[in-house]
Amino acid sequence: MSSTTVLTLQCADRPGVVAAVATLIASTGGNIANADQHTDQESAVFLQRIEIDGPIDWDSFDRGLRRLVEQFEMKWSLHRAGQRQSMVVACSAQLHCVADLLTRVSLGELDVDVRAVVSDKSAGASIAAQHGIPFVLVEGGLDGDARARQERAFADALARFDPDLVVLARYMRVLPASITDAWPGRMINIHHSFLPAFPGARPYQRAHQRGVKLIGATAHYVTSALDEGPIIAQGVATVSHRDEVADLVRIGRDVERKTLADAVRLHLEHRVLVWDNRTCVFA
Amino acid sequence: MSSTTVLTLQCADRPGVVAAVATLIASTGGNIANADQHTDQESAVFLQRIEIDGPIDWDSFDRGLRRLVEQFEMKWSLHRAGQRQSMVVACSAQLHCVADLLTRVSLGELDVDVRAVVSDKSAGASIAAQHGIPFVLVEGGLDGDARARQERAFADALARFDPDLVVLARYMRVLPASITDAWPGRMINIHHSFLPAFPGARPYQRAHQRGVKLIGATAHYVTSALDEGPIIAQGVATVSHRDEVADLVRIGRDVERKTLADAVRLHLEHRVLVWDNRTCVFA
Amino acid sequence: MSSTTVLTLQCADRPGVVAAVATLIASTGGNIANADQHTDQESAVFLQRIEIDGPIDWDSFDRGLRRLVEQFEMKWSLHRAGQRQSMVVACSAQLHCVADLLTRVSLGELDVDVRAVVSDKSAGASIAAQHGIPFVLVEGGLDGDARARQERAFADALARFDPDLVVLARYMRVLPASITDAWPGRMINIHHSFLPAFPGARPYQRAHQRGVKLIGATAHYVTSALDEGPIIAQGVATVSHRDEVADLVRIGRDVERKTLADAVRLHLEHRVLVWDNRTCVFA
Amino acid sequence: MSSTTVLTLQCADRPGVVAAVATLIASTGGNIANADQHTDQESAVFLQRIEIDGPIDWDSFDRGLRRLVEQFEMKWSLHRAGQRQSMVVACSAQLHCVADLLTRVSLGELDVDVRAVVSDKSAGASIAAQHGIPFVLVEGGLDGDARARQERAFADALARFDPDLVVLARYMRVLPASITDAWPGRMINIHHSFLPAFPGARPYQRAHQRGVKLIGATAHYVTSALDEGPIIAQGVATVSHRDEVADLVRIGRDVERKTLADAVRLHLEHRVLVWDNRTCVFA
Repeated sequence: MSSTTVLTLQCADRPGVVAAVATLIASTGGNIANADQHTDQESAVFLQRIEIDGPIDWDSFDRGLRRLVEQFEMKWSLHRAGQRQSMVVACSAQLHCVADLLTRVSLGELDVDVRAVVSDKSAGASIAAQHGIPFVLVEGGLDGDARARQERAFADALARFDPDLVVLARYMRVLPASITDAWPGRMINIHHSFLPAFPGARPYQRAHQRGVKLIGATAHYVTSALDEGPIIAQGVATVSHRDEVADLVRIGRDVERKTLADAVRLHLEHRVLVWDNRTCVFA
Repeated sequence: MSSTTVLTLQCADRPGVVAAVATLIASTGGNIANADQHTDQESAVFLQRIEIDGPIDWDSFDRGLRRLVEQFEMKWSLHRAGQRQSMVVACSAQLHCVADLLTRVSLGELDVDVRAVVSDKSAGASIAAQHGIPFVLVEGGLDGDARARQERAFADALARFDPDLVVLARYMRVLPASITDAWPGRMINIHHSFLPAFPGARPYQRAHQRGVKLIGATAHYVTSALDEGPIIAQGVATVSHRDEVADLVRIGRDVERKTLADAVRLHLEHRVLVWDNRTCVFA
Repeated sequence: MSSTTVLTLQCADRPGVVAAVATLIASTGGNIANADQHTDQESAVFLQRIEIDGPIDWDSFDRGLRRLVEQFEMKWSLHRAGQRQSMVVACSAQLHCVADLLTRVSLGELDVDVRAVVSDKSAGASIAAQHGIPFVLVEGGLDGDARARQERAFADALARFDPDLVVLARYMRVLPASITDAWPGRMINIHHSFLPAFPGARPYQRAHQRGVKLIGATAHYVTSALDEGPIIAQGVATVSHRDEVADLVRIGRDVERKTLADAVRLHLEHRVLVWDNRTCVFA
Repeated sequence: MSSTTVLTLQCADRPGVVAAVATLIASTGGNIANADQHTDQESAVFLQRIEIDGPIDWDSFDRGLRRLVEQFEMKWSLHRAGQRQSMVVACSAQLHCVADLLTRVSLGELDVDVRAVVSDKSAGASIAAQHGIPFVLVEGGLDGDARARQERAFADALARFDPDLVVLARYMRVLPASITDAWPGRMINIHHSFLPAFPGARPYQRAHQRGVKLIGATAHYVTSALDEGPIIAQGVATVSHRDEVADLVRIGRDVERKTLADAVRLHLEHRVLVWDNRTCVFA
């Protein structure tokens, strides 16, 4: 678990904000262990991530922070050292991403409590069992009532486990806005193409058809607009004429699991700030 | 100049074709210095590239090849050792690609005779002069008669210099089918995005707007369908939230020149075979 | 399991060898589904890998192959379609590579029967148990008799399970020549640096000390010369001044598992030919 | 030319330094257009780079900065907006790096005044002439008096042109400490291997002999210890068994020019801070 407290903030860019925040931390006994900041020139938005340690007086700090938040009209978040986060992973029949995430958690590479694996297929049950994690099958179908029933079951499962983060690890259902809107900035999807190329279904088949020489994967926050949410991470691999669709799928699996794992780690470390449907990733 | 002769061929995949070609080469005194082949499973097309050296009896070889071409209904090409190819480079106001190509030619990295630089802007004149290469300004405009006049001037310039290869090195005019159809598999364009993402105009602006984490460039043969011709090479570079549009342009320039130079070299070495709007690149 | 038979061969480069092999396959009813070849100019060695399918008469083929082997003094191997290979994985306290390999086997990404996990530490026992694979703890110590005892136990375990391939997946003991010589071209190690930089111990610490901007991993066949065997695959990742040793270790883990998995897959598909302490990888 | 002033500083890590610097800038009318900072945990060194714009009162700022420098015992540098830097480029017979640098300067990609090209070979004279830059041939030889004479001529040329930066763009002479010590942190070399692998001579031959699957290039500040100075940038490219030494050289040229150009740009933008024989690169 993290031994530093992470403060993130964003506001309109104005002279004095860096000095004000740094002065607050220093004057309440804290130390800036790490800091990263960015000013977007176009939108004139200032974004900052600060790791704080040292013998800080949290009461004074909190009071001072409230004053700054008001003064600069900041959006902010504060993640205390030692707070452990929770996550639910959703998958379908392709299990490489969920297997990779659970392995990383069990090896201590991702510091998070996995509350459940949720799936529209039974294939993931044994991997969840291997790791001692509850498995929830959401039943239903592709259309009409069956679809609505499945969406309700999925929403209920998320609500019941109430995680900090939902990860769609190749969950192959398009979600309604009622679900995506309930997890703003807290639901990550892996799309198996290099967005904005090949959004939607069957990207590897279309990539093969087009004869591309590179394929990719995109991890992004989910919004109600399919495959159009803020991009967190993208990975890429070279391919050639020798690679049939099955090879693209195989090569793509490695890009997908790595890209998704990177995005999840960056999110859990509070390194991703969202503004204007884009992300600022303080890596 | 190449010291080997390059034979390329493609035909429907049938047992015996490799043996027949190899036997022809061996029986006429040649040696296979290098060979690469590919069978596309989907279309059942066989493609091969062979570098031949040794004291071959070319008359016997040519007779034998004609028999095989007929027997297997092959498309083929034969590029004799020592034949020097020619090229015309077209550019507009952005000169990094044309500068890079001319530098590579002058350093001996690309083995080709540059007959002319053709442009719709005068910016490239001094670089052409530096390298002692004729510069042709094709005058005209964006619309109507002026446009038609410019297209005619461009077509005429190509016809006059009659090169083996035309390279559109950031030539920012959309060409009519009457021109693209005249140079099938002999006109290479560099598009400044990772196709099929961001085809058409202003890809870096759109990439920035979308918040992508990787940008790219695509070198492809030109067809009458804009940005949809067979892809020869693609390159990519990582970017971050820190990169404004101007940074994407700067980073992209390096991807563009490298990707285009790679594609031109591969073409000049007869390593690119086209079938079914895709390329087989025997790198 | 593979549906094609794979023939690999190497011999001194001579005119006629390609024709002879292709003619043999065609004349016995086979089809060349894929072929790749290479002639090393320096050593004048010819290497080839051929995937064969079709209704071949194997008796005729085997007789013909014996003749060619004699005529061209070939080294060769023939791997029949459908033959399933076996593997033993060795690890120590770091489990990311063994976890990754076992996950890939269970997902069907690597087509191999894992006979055992062998380790000098007990840490890997639970992962082996998760996958239902025997776990063997080889006891002993770092020096003298204890070391000799451990080496004997390790050698005995390998001999007992008698796999086609041994994978050292971060097994942190230096092996004596008596063991490495027993598995020539059949024992793969992952070294956690970009060899030949940082051979031996603690490469990430030394990479950090040197201030490198890229770190890597190297998968190679094991020989009696430590970290000097033929390289099969290398991977790389960018790092920066922000990355402490612990970050290099974390970033390196992803490079290691991917590089090792690639090397194991390439070996299992008979794509790696060794000559002159180098590899020819028909990817 | 840069429109912002760049302040870089380093000192022992202490609470309050960020606040003090930010307060100074805000209180004298400046604005932090960009800031990046790093604390090295091991050595407890704090490093920062700040881009300043706005209607700052430079007299007050300078007085305040002097106080902070004393208080925190800082090393620092201040580069005023609009100051144009100068550079001398040294080369030998291989001209791809010098050609690339001069092209980038002429295209406006590198914002620097090239005062001269200095070389121990005459090959570079025509490229210098193409760009209208003085060319200096330093005569001498490999050993004894001739070598000393050449070294003196080289040192004299640098002293005469007195640039801000010296770039060794494949200058193939080992320099004596008397020269390297005269340009600390102001002389950049490109080494054609992925250091610390293959330091010294003939790295591509040795890389080929070792059978590596990746080759690289390293741009570093020159110190008196050959190929051991602080690394600024490293690049890498994949290679295969197909690549003979000549291919490695060709592939390496692209890695070299890109890596060197990146390092020169980062230096000119004051993004590289050196401590402890390592670099902090605020990219």
